[in-house]
Amino acid sequence: MSPSTQQADPYARAAAKFSLACKLASIESLLSWDAQTNMPKGGAWARGEQVGALAEIASDLTGTKEIGDLLDEAQAYANLLDASERANLDEMRRLWVHRAAVPKELLVERARVSQALQATWLDAKPNSDFASFAPGFKKMMAIHKEVAAAKGAALGLAPYDAMMDEQDPGLTTALIDPIFDDLAAELPGIMAAVRARQACWRAVIPFSGDFSVGRQTALSERLAVIVGHSPDNSRIDVAPHPFSMPHSPGDVRFTTRYDVDKFRYSVTATLHEAGHSMYELNLPRALAFAPAGFARGASAHESQSLMLEMMAGRSKEFLEFLAPLLHEYFGGDKACWTAANVLNYFRRVDDDYIRVEADEISYPLHVILRYRLERALLSGDLAVDDVPGAWNEMFRKLFGRTPPNHAKGCLQDIHWAAALFGYFPNYALGEALAAQLFERAKADDAAIVPALRKGDFKPYFSWVRPRIHEQASLKSFDDIVAGASGSKLSGAALKRHLRARYLDEEFD
Amino acid sequence: MSPSTQQADPYARAAAKFSLACKLASIESLLSWDAQTNMPKGGAWARGEQVGALAEIASDLTGTKEIGDLLDEAQAYANLLDASERANLDEMRRLWVHRAAVPKELLVERARVSQALQATWLDAKPNSDFASFAPGFKKMMAIHKEVAAAKGAALGLAPYDAMMDEQDPGLTTALIDPIFDDLAAELPGIMAAVRARQACWRAVIPFSGDFSVGRQTALSERLAVIVGHSPDNSRIDVAPHPFSMPHSPGDVRFTTRYDVDKFRYSVTATLHEAGHSMYELNLPRALAFAPAGFARGASAHESQSLMLEMMAGRSKEFLEFLAPLLHEYFGGDKACWTAANVLNYFRRVDDDYIRVEADEISYPLHVILRYRLERALLSGDLAVDDVPGAWNEMFRKLFGRTPPNHAKGCLQDIHWAAALFGYFPNYALGEALAAQLFERAKADDAAIVPALRKGDFKPYFSWVRPRIHEQASLKSFDDIVAGASGSKLSGAALKRHLRARYLDEEFD
Repeated sequence: MSPSTQQADPYARAAAKFSLACKLASIESLLSWDAQTNMPKGGAWARGEQVGALAEIASDLTGTKEIGDLLDEAQAYANLLDASERANLDEMRRLWVHRAAVPKELLVERARVSQALQATWLDAKPNSDFASFAPGFKKMMAIHKEVAAAKGAALGLAPYDAMMDEQDPGLTTALIDPIFDDLAAELPGIMAAVRARQACWRAVIPFSGDFSVGRQTALSERLAVIVGHSPDNSRIDVAPHPFSMPHSPGDVRFTTRYDVDKFRYSVTATLHEAGHSMYELNLPRALAFAPAGFARGASAHESQSLMLEMMAGRSKEFLEFLAPLLHEYFGGDKACWTAANVLNYFRRVDDDYIRVEADEISYPLHVILRYRLERALLSGDLAVDDVPGAWNEMFRKLFGRTPPNHAKGCLQDIHWAAALFGYFPNYALGEALAAQLFERAKADDAAIVPALRKGDFKPYFSWVRPRIHEQASLKSFDDIVAGASGSKLSGAALKRHLRARYLDEEFD
Repeated sequence: MSPSTQQADPYARAAAKFSLACKLASIESLLSWDAQTNMPKGGAWARGEQVGALAEIASDLTGTKEIGDLLDEAQAYANLLDASERANLDEMRRLWVHRAAVPKELLVERARVSQALQATWLDAKPNSDFASFAPGFKKMMAIHKEVAAAKGAALGLAPYDAMMDEQDPGLTTALIDPIFDDLAAELPGIMAAVRARQACWRAVIPFSGDFSVGRQTALSERLAVIVGHSPDNSRIDVAPHPFSMPHSPGDVRFTTRYDVDKFRYSVTATLHEAGHSMYELNLPRALAFAPAGFARGASAHESQSLMLEMMAGRSKEFLEFLAPLLHEYFGGDKACWTAANVLNYFRRVDDDYIRVEADEISYPLHVILRYRLERALLSGDLAVDDVPGAWNEMFRKLFGRTPPNHAKGCLQDIHWAAALFGYFPNYALGEALAAQLFERAKADDAAIVPALRKGDFKPYFSWVRPRIHEQASLKSFDDIVAGASGSKLSGAALKRHLRARYLDEEFD
């Protein structure tokens, strides 16, 4: 073995292990997709065993002390690696730290508690019964505190930052706090002005047509193709919660749901998930199954779904394209399918309490509320039993109204039951980033928005693909954001966007 | 650690590794099911990587020298194990021998050659172009010879027996040859007599009704429920080649295909695959993901599909139940849906050349032909280039007619392209076993067949479940067969069955 081969060898050996683990992760995504789309109920037990086996093997492959030593050796010869290998080494190190920091038993316990808590939540939510949810949530919080402390120590990060780092590397409370504080201060005022303006709008002309699932499905499939998918690389299925399946190169799948009384939902959900899946489709194939080849974290991913759903998807130009398409798929009275009426429907701000159905202006506030409660829960400043009161109080402050029950309040999301903690911020950061990227994209290429009037997304993706998608995890989040938009992430572009669209824009 | 714990430990450690490998096998089944039902074309490359990763990990888990040593240690204390653990140890040993016997590189090469050969076959078959298939098949045969020799040496078996042992442990040419020689001698005579008898039957009254895919799908789902499935533990999808997904406790899935000109096909295919999946559903849950908990090999599995499809499914009693059900699902003229006309249609022997569509009498002959060619190929008595001639010659001898082209001859099955070799015999052994079990079941419980007239399969499964399904791999094939039927597997019951049903049975 030549010296240089010998020196490069630790990298190659580590990369091979992580490559296997990445393939297992892609398999786990498929198992999860299958569980939510196809699996008969009776398969739940075996599915748990399968997923557990993958986790155990992935941990043995990439979470041991030996792997840490191998990564140290590889680091010593990092000068022999090219840029993408160095990025991959950094990502392997990060994943290793996360895996090695926490005892396997604690992760198994977390999974066990989460399984039980999700079942509890399914019953508790419709009954607005926080009391039955609290005991399991307390157990979960105790585990989160232990995990956060262990990861924090290993990463040299504060506990909440350490929790965020796994899904959203490089994002910390230091970045979030000023953005969220600013949005929390400004958005209620914008919302009040928008409400005053929309109060003068004429009422939406009720839509007539056939909104059966078959029609909505056909429209969703058409929209996916319009955006840039093909049946050769994608599919759409039905699931109660829309999601997209990551990590399977050349095979993206997402789900939507159909509400025959509210066709808007499947349109926006389809655009949203299509934004996620275009990111996955455009990741560099040469880095498939390497940690550096993955999308750059949850906020970057959410920026792509929200940029498509909200920024492009609710633009006047796209809604002009959409209106006759809706008529083509749903039929009904032509008078209701004017661009103006469709815009009136898609742009109306809501008075509800539910994050996933919220308008562009309210959405970040829903997220900020959760983030603040999570930080207080993790620091111990907020006790689990006090969550409902704190939720309602904060909701009232941000929205000026109080949820009528916990189903529309602190029990509405599955995340806390599903052991996702430190994950909510990405939804609002993603929206802020979406606005920041869309603003820059429009400035860079004036053809992007007019093309949407013809349903042409080529200019849009020509801008975003090399700047975000093909960057994968080859650079840090901050570097990718700065490279694409020219500045660090902030809430400024989002505020400009909301004011321009909801307060200044003129239309018929 | 107490001495007994210490002594039992090697078994527990080995069992844990094999349990992980079994979970990976069940995942691989799901990946394969998905590839044939849901996966967009573009996912093929990633799917290959995923399956390759599972194979590599399974091999590292259960195919190393260390595992062999661990199994030796466990064997030394086998007296401390209970019966099911001892059976599991035997199965682990067998799987280890198969995995350890063949260098990993050779298996990778076989997979590579097979991938290419399957693509070649897809083009070669419709063009009846054996010349383009031959070069890849020669490479494949060279690999099979090496694999068979290596496994044979490790198992102390002749090469062809060693190839069979992985899928069908305990079955050897010594068992097969007398059965197949007997059937090859007798079936052509039975067939000639049946033809003479059926020549006097009136023609089938053409069926009228709506045979659209939707109707056929609904009927297939109804049949699955009638047999004993529920939507909570099973699903049916469409795939070009019907198959069932093994190894996922509580979640059985099978596929069928729908031919609007030939509704018989989906009925028989559904019953066939439902027979496989009931076996999987009834395997003991306590042994899920243990090698001893798997079905007892390919022939046992095929006996369960064919017993349901052919023995029960073409009985006069079941066809009497089926006739009005067909009318319920397909509509059309009541006159064509009499039990007699349906029986006339389902019992007709065919004049075609295709194994998968063959009648009960021809079916074993199709298999015997392949078995004899395979043995000659493996021994070197037959060269790949001579396969088409040998096929046609043997077909003429067994069936009295010659295939018009290779698409209906030696290129009809995917098995040789898919690296399945030593696998064909199970199809005919399964039919012989199906007849032997059905004969005994009827003798043990006179209510089984009359219940089919009401579509009641409870007595049927009450007999077969404890005798076959719940035996899993806790005993040898021979012991399970003898325990259930009272004798060793032979072709005698099949011959009696065919004569009774096709020559002696009276009906309107």
